Amino acid sequence: MTELLLISGSLRKGSFNTKLAREAERLWDGETAWGDIRLPLYDGDLEDEKGIPEAVQTLAQRIASADAVAISTPEYNKSIPGGLKNALDWVSRTEGNLWADKPVAIMSAAGGRGGGDRSQFALRLALTPFQPRLLTGPEVMVAGASKQFDDEGQLVSDLYKKTLTTLMDKLAREVARTD
Amino acid sequence: MTELLLISGSLRKGSFNTKLAREAERLWDGETAWGDIRLPLYDGDLEDEKGIPEAVQTLAQRIASADAVAISTPEYNKSIPGGLKNALDWVSRTEGNLWADKPVAIMSAAGGRGGGDRSQFALRLALTPFQPRLLTGPEVMVAGASKQFDDEGQLVSDLYKKTLTTLMDKLAREVARTD
Amino acid sequence: MTELLLISGSLRKGSFNTKLAREAERLWDGETAWGDIRLPLYDGDLEDEKGIPEAVQTLAQRIASADAVAISTPEYNKSIPGGLKNALDWVSRTEGNLWADKPVAIMSAAGGRGGGDRSQFALRLALTPFQPRLLTGPEVMVAGASKQFDDEGQLVSDLYKKTLTTLMDKLAREVARTD
Amino acid sequence: MTELLLISGSLRKGSFNTKLAREAERLWDGETAWGDIRLPLYDGDLEDEKGIPEAVQTLAQRIASADAVAISTPEYNKSIPGGLKNALDWVSRTEGNLWADKPVAIMSAAGGRGGGDRSQFALRLALTPFQPRLLTGPEVMVAGASKQFDDEGQLVSDLYKKTLTTLMDKLAREVARTD
Repeated sequence: MTELLLISGSLRKGSFNTKLAREAERLWDGETAWGDIRLPLYDGDLEDEKGIPEAVQTLAQRIASADAVAISTPEYNKSIPGGLKNALDWVSRTEGNLWADKPVAIMSAAGGRGGGDRSQFALRLALTPFQPRLLTGPEVMVAGASKQFDDEGQLVSDLYKKTLTTLMDKLAREVARTD
Repeated sequence: MTELLLISGSLRKGSFNTKLAREAERLWDGETAWGDIRLPLYDGDLEDEKGIPEAVQTLAQRIASADAVAISTPEYNKSIPGGLKNALDWVSRTEGNLWADKPVAIMSAAGGRGGGDRSQFALRLALTPFQPRLLTGPEVMVAGASKQFDDEGQLVSDLYKKTLTTLMDKLAREVARTD
Repeated sequence: MTELLLISGSLRKGSFNTKLAREAERLWDGETAWGDIRLPLYDGDLEDEKGIPEAVQTLAQRIASADAVAISTPEYNKSIPGGLKNALDWVSRTEGNLWADKPVAIMSAAGGRGGGDRSQFALRLALTPFQPRLLTGPEVMVAGASKQFDDEGQLVSDLYKKTLTTLMDKLAREVARTD
Repeated sequence: MTELLLISGSLRKGSFNTKLAREAERLWDGETAWGDIRLPLYDGDLEDEKGIPEAVQTLAQRIASADAVAISTPEYNKSIPGGLKNALDWVSRTEGNLWADKPVAIMSAAGGRGGGDRSQFALRLALTPFQPRLLTGPEVMVAGASKQFDDEGQLVSDLYKKTLTTLMDKLAREVARTD
């Protein structure tokens, strides 16, 4: 049974991106786990003195043990949140490259009309150095996010649902291909 | 008398980028101040409950009162540190756009041969939405940074010194032009 | 009297970007000229054998003599047209750096909902190496372009008109500041 | 027997990127073909009047029939050559998406110390919309390219050879995985 790790780039409880990641979770035929980016700021002195924080180790282990990862990112000022990049930076300090050849899908929900398109560009470039098996699409970019989820947190638009389904199917196929 | 605000993208005490920013400071004919990016991770719930943290307010006020800003960024995994983006995100939550028409210079020091060229690209795109008067060059990208500063933390290479001087002169002229 | 050079990134006669550039032209209080990107593909052997083509020289001279430049770019596959980058590449082969400190504004019209936002990111990075005085905004990104121009080729939306006016005013002020 | 299509982003006969692509070709265990980007500038009117040029059709067919593609790009002014983007734009006008799920590797050779790192970022973003199976590494970025090829056009550095071998092995495995 394959395991999918879900990461939301937003810390907010009611986050649209956490909702979007949950929708991705529902579409996964297998086990799921969540990764938490609520970490201290990366600081080389902190690392030297106290080592890699436990919360970072936990996140790293979840990435390592997952068969695939799905990341949903908001768009903060036309790019990814600092907190999301901070998590990538911390994880890069653990031993080995956990991302190598790992199937990864990215998606976004944002208030504007672009739906996070520039944030996805930034996330793609931020993930590339770790050499994951990073899907190039289809692009799931939920625009005007505040109106796109119902009271149960589910996507209301058939188009978005369909695109997300295509993306998650592609991710599952990528995992199968890895075997 | 004009004031320059210096921001280092690294939290490490012995940071090469803090050293590079200090070199920029020495070249400034006027007052200087420093901005600190050691802030909590941006979290919309935290903002809703407790408002904007005092450390963010302090950073924002320094940006607002500065005549120019110089930012020195490391390259973490081919992009800017999460902590630096996090600071930009927090500041964007304060009232008004503090960056509007503000002369800003960017520079970088990094271990690799590129000297932070991709980090500068990322920082340029991250700053653009705030519509500062963002200098397009010359590019100060200190490669192989561990060998480029002497015991006093000063740049050893005449070429880097010269390029940094040109950049800071350009920043000063940009401030004069603003008046 | 100041001169504005207008460049459209599209070769099509009915191009929305040419229309958008014409709207920018109308807002300019001064002389205007147009730059043509219909050039051969850059080829180092061609340059060695026959020198820089006359059409490139003409474009370069227009950039050199202009007080400001406005470029309107379509979005082809999430980035700028090859032809526009080709023009920048050719011009970079002429003597001196014609773009240095030149006030430049960029804008875009595109079919999609983003209005060329990713194309503008690409154009910004493509122009940065020449160190122009590149305005960081406001962003004029005409989305759903096919419905945004009337029979006279003028913008129908008051919001787009207003944003374009702000951008062109800013460009004019930048020229004044240069003096 | 699998077929690899090679594309050089430079038109110059003695191009370092063509040499690099030839090195990639030598490492391929299967058939090879070359794609030519010497095409007219994309022009919507030209397409409307005369259809898609034959040279574009040829390139498109070679992409379609290839099991994998390797693209070697120079860095012109910190990004990809206009001619390379122009080829991508033209090909995108042919029927279907020829790139979908196609294994693609990118590499670069450049004069500067970065070896085309920013050009590779631009190429990655330019290819992403077509949803290929785009390898994220290892990065083959030949810096100081004029000294990196011997008289037979072969790479002189063991490190570059090794990295290129790793990349091409990965591309071959990606093709096998596709089956």
